[in-house]
Amino acid sequence: MKNYFSSNFKLGVLGGGQLGRMLLTETQKLDIYTVILDSNNEAPCAQICNEFHQGDLLDFDTVYNFGKKVDVLTIEIENVNIDALDKLEAEGHTIYPKPENLRTIQNKARQKVFYHDHNIPTADFSRFASLEELKHSIDNGAVNFPFVWKSARFGYDGNGVKIVKSITDLNNLPTDECIAEKLIPFKNELAVIVARNTNGEVKTYPVVEMEFHPEANQVEYVICPARIEESVAKKAREIALKVADIFDFVGLLAVEMFQTENDDILVNEVAPRTHNSGHYSIEASYTNQFEQHLRSILNLPLGNTDSKLAGIMVNLVGAEGHTGEVVYKNIEEILKIDGVTPHLYGKKTTKPFRKMGHVTIVNTDINEARKVAQQVKETIQVIAK
Amino acid sequence: MKNYFSSNFKLGVLGGGQLGRMLLTETQKLDIYTVILDSNNEAPCAQICNEFHQGDLLDFDTVYNFGKKVDVLTIEIENVNIDALDKLEAEGHTIYPKPENLRTIQNKARQKVFYHDHNIPTADFSRFASLEELKHSIDNGAVNFPFVWKSARFGYDGNGVKIVKSITDLNNLPTDECIAEKLIPFKNELAVIVARNTNGEVKTYPVVEMEFHPEANQVEYVICPARIEESVAKKAREIALKVADIFDFVGLLAVEMFQTENDDILVNEVAPRTHNSGHYSIEASYTNQFEQHLRSILNLPLGNTDSKLAGIMVNLVGAEGHTGEVVYKNIEEILKIDGVTPHLYGKKTTKPFRKMGHVTIVNTDINEARKVAQQVKETIQVIAK
Repeated sequence: MKNYFSSNFKLGVLGGGQLGRMLLTETQKLDIYTVILDSNNEAPCAQICNEFHQGDLLDFDTVYNFGKKVDVLTIEIENVNIDALDKLEAEGHTIYPKPENLRTIQNKARQKVFYHDHNIPTADFSRFASLEELKHSIDNGAVNFPFVWKSARFGYDGNGVKIVKSITDLNNLPTDECIAEKLIPFKNELAVIVARNTNGEVKTYPVVEMEFHPEANQVEYVICPARIEESVAKKAREIALKVADIFDFVGLLAVEMFQTENDDILVNEVAPRTHNSGHYSIEASYTNQFEQHLRSILNLPLGNTDSKLAGIMVNLVGAEGHTGEVVYKNIEEILKIDGVTPHLYGKKTTKPFRKMGHVTIVNTDINEARKVAQQVKETIQVIAK
Repeated sequence: MKNYFSSNFKLGVLGGGQLGRMLLTETQKLDIYTVILDSNNEAPCAQICNEFHQGDLLDFDTVYNFGKKVDVLTIEIENVNIDALDKLEAEGHTIYPKPENLRTIQNKARQKVFYHDHNIPTADFSRFASLEELKHSIDNGAVNFPFVWKSARFGYDGNGVKIVKSITDLNNLPTDECIAEKLIPFKNELAVIVARNTNGEVKTYPVVEMEFHPEANQVEYVICPARIEESVAKKAREIALKVADIFDFVGLLAVEMFQTENDDILVNEVAPRTHNSGHYSIEASYTNQFEQHLRSILNLPLGNTDSKLAGIMVNLVGAEGHTGEVVYKNIEEILKIDGVTPHLYGKKTTKPFRKMGHVTIVNTDINEARKVAQQVKETIQVIAK
């Protein structure tokens, strides 16, 4: 084994946002020298990594030159220059997740084709080179309303996804490559994080459930374990494992899925990295997802993915109507509650819906945790000064 | 409440060792801007704090000038220039723990007198201005062998403490102020960490037990909860609370105690800060001691001190006969075991008995945790390259 700890080994990370920041907690715990590349020199990682480089993650030369300076290269965001990663890999550099996996996942159309080609259950879809092409298909009856439009590139957190009920819903959408996906009525949106190292050792975290706000179409709570039947959970873990195996994936793969009305599991999309749906693991799991990511990409033995306690995560997003220097209103109120841990991402300014942090609630009783989560949600507010 | 989070607020910490490093994990989690002072620019905190200042913690001007630059000043080591803290406090600066508490605790003779004056149970002792004075008292029969010699100043981790069985044991000891303490045969060495904020809100962590190596007089395991009777644990927590109350303490106070053959509890000594005996809390407690320290000194509500699981901590100290660039031999072996988390302190070179890190073992069953702890202890080795 290479000596990663308190040594001259350098881990490089493309991206310096909150996922990188929580990864740094783990590289600090294990004393792994970590170098971060991000375009923003006020990124959440900038001040607390061993070395920070400012540069564009989508620029070939920037990514290529950064990659040459480190021993193992990883990502905390998938929108990076893959051509540079291909060249680095061809030259013998170690990069996990693998560039070819990132290339497939980065483009949602390609990702859907991949599922189709490998018999992974997913919603039916059609692929279009442009919005114009999609409109033609609607005109000639090949695509019917309602459907889900998804931009092939650079969507995240619900950006780049829209339920289209009539032709006017297509107004003002990006004009480039997209897919039209069958709208699936689902009981639950679930996620499973799979960890896999270069030896092929593999573990899945428990199935988590995204609970949506009854009116706004927004995830309010990530709940672990999901309140679903054991048979459904088993199926979800098996499908997630299958996806990771087919990718021959190394690292963490977050597999988002729908549980249909008939208890079928359909893969919605995957993220090739640590994921919002795994943040609960910092407080609730034996091995949190960030430590597990390190174990995976450094080919260390994987840690126990079981939970110590039930865990629920609440995202802290900027309140509507508030832009400016951030204040976490009533944070002292939530600190009074047992088992509540806020994580603030180090962003100095808030704007509506910006992800500013999250709060984890742990409890021996998941129903109690759910009540506390609601109390937290109703108490803390991310506002401007 | 002051806005500590993602704001212009600056927390200053005297000392940049491993305790500071683990505190930084928590200041990062809550995005509290943290400035560190340490004499060593390769200290564990140096690269990962928001601002690092190099300087002597015992130098008046250095500490005074540092203190003027921050909003709240705290410590991670008690051997600092207290005169500077007194002046800062007199000028209205906020310093926790309070300088007067540090002054009492920094000197073991003064600490013992404090216990005596406030009816805190502690082993009988005599105080001497010099080793020469102690020798006179032995000569004239006022002090009898065996006894425990303790240096009044700057002892830590067993340095500055010696069991004296004959006059020759005094050879080569420091010649300055010391105490001679009655040698107490004890069943157990216990510790309780008390957290107290400026509102006087107070919580105690569960009693932990230090298990010693059967031959070498060295703590091998810190075990939480201590395997003692509930009545003894209750007494230990009450005495620890009493000490914190009499000090009118703000911050974390680690109270080390002896459980005598008769199940009496005697206070051995206290540390006015986060403590080795609380490291288990990172993985095992609802609120770890480092987050709790922040809550205490910033007058935030205190967190739940209960444990999620049983926890055992094993110190990682440099192996005998090894000096140089550190290697954690067999670390991959211990990573295979469920519930095992290594913490490496970021020190590049090892030497015999240097504290290089620790490993936490958590388990639902304390006896199982104890077995795993032994396996960890017998597997990992801190050696030079």
